[in-house]
Amino acid sequence: MGNTFGHLFRITTFGESHGGGVGVIVDGCPPRLEISAEEIQFELDRRRPGQSKITTPRKEADQCEILSGVFEGKTLGTPIAILVRNKDARSQDYDEMAQKYRPSHADATYDAKYGIRNWQGGGRSSARETIGRVAAGAIAKKILKQVAGVEIIGYVKRIKDLEGMVDPETVTLEQVESNIVRCPDSDCADRMIELIEQIGRSGDSVGGVVECVARNVPKGLGIPVFDKLEADLAKGVMSLPASKGFEIGSGFAGTVLTGSEHNDEFYTDEHGNIRTVTNRSGGIQGGISNGESIIIRAAFKPTATIRKEQRTVNKAGEETVLAAKGRHDPCVLPRAVPMVEAMMALVLCDHLLRQHGQCSILPQ
Amino acid sequence: MGNTFGHLFRITTFGESHGGGVGVIVDGCPPRLEISAEEIQFELDRRRPGQSKITTPRKEADQCEILSGVFEGKTLGTPIAILVRNKDARSQDYDEMAQKYRPSHADATYDAKYGIRNWQGGGRSSARETIGRVAAGAIAKKILKQVAGVEIIGYVKRIKDLEGMVDPETVTLEQVESNIVRCPDSDCADRMIELIEQIGRSGDSVGGVVECVARNVPKGLGIPVFDKLEADLAKGVMSLPASKGFEIGSGFAGTVLTGSEHNDEFYTDEHGNIRTVTNRSGGIQGGISNGESIIIRAAFKPTATIRKEQRTVNKAGEETVLAAKGRHDPCVLPRAVPMVEAMMALVLCDHLLRQHGQCSILPQ
Amino acid sequence: MGNTFGHLFRITTFGESHGGGVGVIVDGCPPRLEISAEEIQFELDRRRPGQSKITTPRKEADQCEILSGVFEGKTLGTPIAILVRNKDARSQDYDEMAQKYRPSHADATYDAKYGIRNWQGGGRSSARETIGRVAAGAIAKKILKQVAGVEIIGYVKRIKDLEGMVDPETVTLEQVESNIVRCPDSDCADRMIELIEQIGRSGDSVGGVVECVARNVPKGLGIPVFDKLEADLAKGVMSLPASKGFEIGSGFAGTVLTGSEHNDEFYTDEHGNIRTVTNRSGGIQGGISNGESIIIRAAFKPTATIRKEQRTVNKAGEETVLAAKGRHDPCVLPRAVPMVEAMMALVLCDHLLRQHGQCSILPQ
Amino acid sequence: MGNTFGHLFRITTFGESHGGGVGVIVDGCPPRLEISAEEIQFELDRRRPGQSKITTPRKEADQCEILSGVFEGKTLGTPIAILVRNKDARSQDYDEMAQKYRPSHADATYDAKYGIRNWQGGGRSSARETIGRVAAGAIAKKILKQVAGVEIIGYVKRIKDLEGMVDPETVTLEQVESNIVRCPDSDCADRMIELIEQIGRSGDSVGGVVECVARNVPKGLGIPVFDKLEADLAKGVMSLPASKGFEIGSGFAGTVLTGSEHNDEFYTDEHGNIRTVTNRSGGIQGGISNGESIIIRAAFKPTATIRKEQRTVNKAGEETVLAAKGRHDPCVLPRAVPMVEAMMALVLCDHLLRQHGQCSILPQ
Repeated sequence: MGNTFGHLFRITTFGESHGGGVGVIVDGCPPRLEISAEEIQFELDRRRPGQSKITTPRKEADQCEILSGVFEGKTLGTPIAILVRNKDARSQDYDEMAQKYRPSHADATYDAKYGIRNWQGGGRSSARETIGRVAAGAIAKKILKQVAGVEIIGYVKRIKDLEGMVDPETVTLEQVESNIVRCPDSDCADRMIELIEQIGRSGDSVGGVVECVARNVPKGLGIPVFDKLEADLAKGVMSLPASKGFEIGSGFAGTVLTGSEHNDEFYTDEHGNIRTVTNRSGGIQGGISNGESIIIRAAFKPTATIRKEQRTVNKAGEETVLAAKGRHDPCVLPRAVPMVEAMMALVLCDHLLRQHGQCSILPQ
Repeated sequence: MGNTFGHLFRITTFGESHGGGVGVIVDGCPPRLEISAEEIQFELDRRRPGQSKITTPRKEADQCEILSGVFEGKTLGTPIAILVRNKDARSQDYDEMAQKYRPSHADATYDAKYGIRNWQGGGRSSARETIGRVAAGAIAKKILKQVAGVEIIGYVKRIKDLEGMVDPETVTLEQVESNIVRCPDSDCADRMIELIEQIGRSGDSVGGVVECVARNVPKGLGIPVFDKLEADLAKGVMSLPASKGFEIGSGFAGTVLTGSEHNDEFYTDEHGNIRTVTNRSGGIQGGISNGESIIIRAAFKPTATIRKEQRTVNKAGEETVLAAKGRHDPCVLPRAVPMVEAMMALVLCDHLLRQHGQCSILPQ
Repeated sequence: MGNTFGHLFRITTFGESHGGGVGVIVDGCPPRLEISAEEIQFELDRRRPGQSKITTPRKEADQCEILSGVFEGKTLGTPIAILVRNKDARSQDYDEMAQKYRPSHADATYDAKYGIRNWQGGGRSSARETIGRVAAGAIAKKILKQVAGVEIIGYVKRIKDLEGMVDPETVTLEQVESNIVRCPDSDCADRMIELIEQIGRSGDSVGGVVECVARNVPKGLGIPVFDKLEADLAKGVMSLPASKGFEIGSGFAGTVLTGSEHNDEFYTDEHGNIRTVTNRSGGIQGGISNGESIIIRAAFKPTATIRKEQRTVNKAGEETVLAAKGRHDPCVLPRAVPMVEAMMALVLCDHLLRQHGQCSILPQ
Repeated sequence: MGNTFGHLFRITTFGESHGGGVGVIVDGCPPRLEISAEEIQFELDRRRPGQSKITTPRKEADQCEILSGVFEGKTLGTPIAILVRNKDARSQDYDEMAQKYRPSHADATYDAKYGIRNWQGGGRSSARETIGRVAAGAIAKKILKQVAGVEIIGYVKRIKDLEGMVDPETVTLEQVESNIVRCPDSDCADRMIELIEQIGRSGDSVGGVVECVARNVPKGLGIPVFDKLEADLAKGVMSLPASKGFEIGSGFAGTVLTGSEHNDEFYTDEHGNIRTVTNRSGGIQGGISNGESIIIRAAFKPTATIRKEQRTVNKAGEETVLAAKGRHDPCVLPRAVPMVEAMMALVLCDHLLRQHGQCSILPQ
């Protein structure tokens, strides 16, 4: 367990940074969905390293192979296994890290937990692990789109203290992909790119906030009490590497309002649908989607592996210093965007199936 | 599903606000733990309404009965069922709400999801549901204390914009319980109480932030990748009623630092233990506890049910207004403290057993 | 875990023979199902002790109370908790058994596993535990009936070497309930009753075989590969107390046929439905229901607790003898019938929802 | 779901007969176990087709590759992914079966469930799927051996009506592997081989019974009530292709004994261990292992795919005849032996970890 996510639409990921490869099994996918390796590759390409001057220069094509579960272009309903081979291994970059623990990385805790660790490239704690999630997320997105017209769009909202202005109700994928930092506010994007380049040159790193919206989500998704939609979204996002915080709707800022300021009043729109005037709830009330846009934010800390020298200890507990070698992202945010979208898609797709299975079988 | 939480130490809660009662089944509890109804009642009393002038005046004794799983004062290893009967029902307060949806409450979404709703007292969306969690959390706390000396202490960190100064490394339960708002900064507590009373009188409500620390947590808890410790904590906390955000360690504030500012450097202490100089990680690195204190924060929105008049619609979609009757907390924070502690305890206890089951069976 | 069964339609049982009570939580029940305590009680009455001269004379009314999840006669979609209080405790009958292990009973293994045991009435290993299953099974039966017209009928097929002639395609509940041994072959039933009475007088016990048929099961239920329908049925049945074997369709007898003798040839019936000429498959092929009747058999050993003196040991390992006191069934088969039906219903209902959730969401 | 088995030691299999390959992810494996691809290959070679004159002549090397989870010869505690590429595809053998449903096979039910089917080689319903189980079972066996000295040995007990005499307490792997039918009674084995060859020549098939013993199983494994050890064993075995029945200990034969004849009386052996004089319980009482040998039996029907002509229908429901082409086992039993062993190992290993996680964390 621990490497499985979801109930009806359920994924299990595997793989370390170095070794045979990384991938995912998607179990419970509805049959008869048209899906191709190209559609999955589209999302993997948004995630892969080396895609721009502000990401790690590691060149990994991350080419995916569908091993099972798809036949003549359609899903079979049986497990879909997707494999991405590992390549471009420069494990000598990690020789020093085999002994010295990187501050705020997973090296020391993996050793403490397992008593053994694949120190090459971070092993299982590498962001390469998210390949499986993003591949599965591509399938989930397609189901959501096809069944309910759901659109999921993530973007960089903030890098360090540079915050973009973005309207989640209207932002498009094209706007997000129009620049390499994936911030749809193009003026702010320019400044973000400049900051990342500068911080990267200095051997340091920065973090920020990704915002993600899901539009056209049907009412009724999410299961009280533990599998509330925001609870599963929080788990999904907080299981991503480097995440430190999660918000839905008004989030922490909402706590300084009074109830009368914060509540989303109801009205009935021209189609007779019950809607809310505002959306501080972020599309979820009582753990269940209300038909408004679902809006979440994830905080990502600055990359832990930096070239600047830091105090640390080695496996024997002896104090030493470490200036990390290797090719690391000075900022994970641009590549985190497809990861957050994937987790949003996986949670919504699972709940779409669960809602259908439980609540639509008896006549209304 | 949906009402079950945890894997090895697993709880399932049941019950609506009105009806036969609410409760919990704890499955997978280690056998031979000494536990009494009194120990569970202690935590329930911290959660129950009517405990002070700043909580709802509903008088509910919330007396628990252990139905099974305990014999001669010790756990059997079989399911522990705990029942709290519902009392003091004034469902007439809810007559109007049977028809009119409370803004930002679960009324409308329950109807959308299930096509039916127990409108009395909020039904399953009532905070009464958390009785089961708090009862189970009392057992989890005792296991953690006994096996590893873990201490879990939650407190109100902020009400609206009033923020207390609290040191999570030294704060005590006595300090928390020394005032009715459960903020260990007593000066700030006085102002918080005053604010809540004032806002309550005005028919409005306020929110805030609960912080919770777990000290003496063993290294090695948490399972990459989806069941990272912070991911399960986030899910646990975000499944609580009214929660809108979650942070671990530096949280959102950490995103404005650079990597070299944010990283927790290692050193070896006088006992030969590998420790970190700072704790921006919040006790978790790579999803696994590192032996430092685990520090989380949860944002709770202002109570949705308020006496002030608001625009809303009824079940038929007709626009109307609602000024809620009934006896509602103007601020859920003081009672949310034991709930956050319970979720922390449930997550840690489950992972303690999972770590023991997987990683201690072969010789080191 | 361990006390939970099913995925979408999921039950968790609790309770020991003596103590506060026994019961069940049903999670994932479709909302808006009409259900009453009386309908559940009907099945519990078929299970309860003291119902006839060939069952234990313990008088337990086993009156059920629905604690939650039902409102104005309909399910809410939230957890349904059902409680049956324990009564008529004569724990002094068990004083000797607190020390001496009953041969082929669970006394010794519970001690070995848990290091503690509720020795009163067998504790959690008592057949009283099945009350929760039977109560939940009543709900599952109603859903199956309502959604798909499924009929589930169990009966005693054999007691010791007395085997009844029963046609699973036509047998009715009325025939089953027409005699106290629940064998629809009335001549054979008379001999069975005589045998059980005689064996009971001698202080000994007998076992036998329960057969159970589910008619009108929709095609497509069951999920390859581990959750094949027969695999889940086998688990359900083999989790019942005293069960020693499970068969589907031709079972062990089918292994002496050749493939050409055993295969069920296909034809198309007058309604254009693809059917099989014979039904040695027992209604399941490749783990998936094929629309024919599902026919299973369960072997139940003779009751372990007997009044005849047997060699045993006590907790200290000292050899001794035991002639059990207390009021025990000389034959569990008549009361096992509703238990097997319940497990059949729970498995089918869970798979009905799972099939609906996964396979009906995209257009055919 | 549906393709995952186990809780703490959990496997997920994937793959169809034709396509990229088949395999398994093992999640929850204890870290620091020495394991090699050769050890896994040993078991796969016992399962693979073409291994002898009485199995299908398809030549599939079934060479496994460990993709992840093992580093420098030891398990990491992270998911172990194992892949076996598909080869030797002669899908033209299946052209006719793309249209015509094989009687008693999964063709028709897969179509009914999913509305789509990979008809090449049976797709997911092919016995190739068991490669993943057998590979994972090899790891489980090693853990059981290393932690507790558990030995798991399966063998062919019966082919059609030819039954071997085997003592489960003393049988060795060498005896089982000494002949190609895997029946340790060598005289009977000769007759079995002759029968299989003869039936194969006639274009027909036969079934039989596999028996499997686990010796040195620690007391205390198995969790009442639903995850009783025999219930999980039954599910595991009944999820294997072609299985029709399951027995533990005395099984169906035990139902003709009286309680006094059937009960296993206790004694204390020379080491002070509580033992049973007989073992009709099959090593499990009350769902929990009692330290005696666990003995199970599985009924396998005759292979459904035969060369003899049979009545059937095509996808359009038109009646026709089919004489299957392709290279099929006239008897699956010899190759089913490692499959049954694998399921026994998977269940015991999972329960070993679960027992350790729940019951050994508090002092006795």
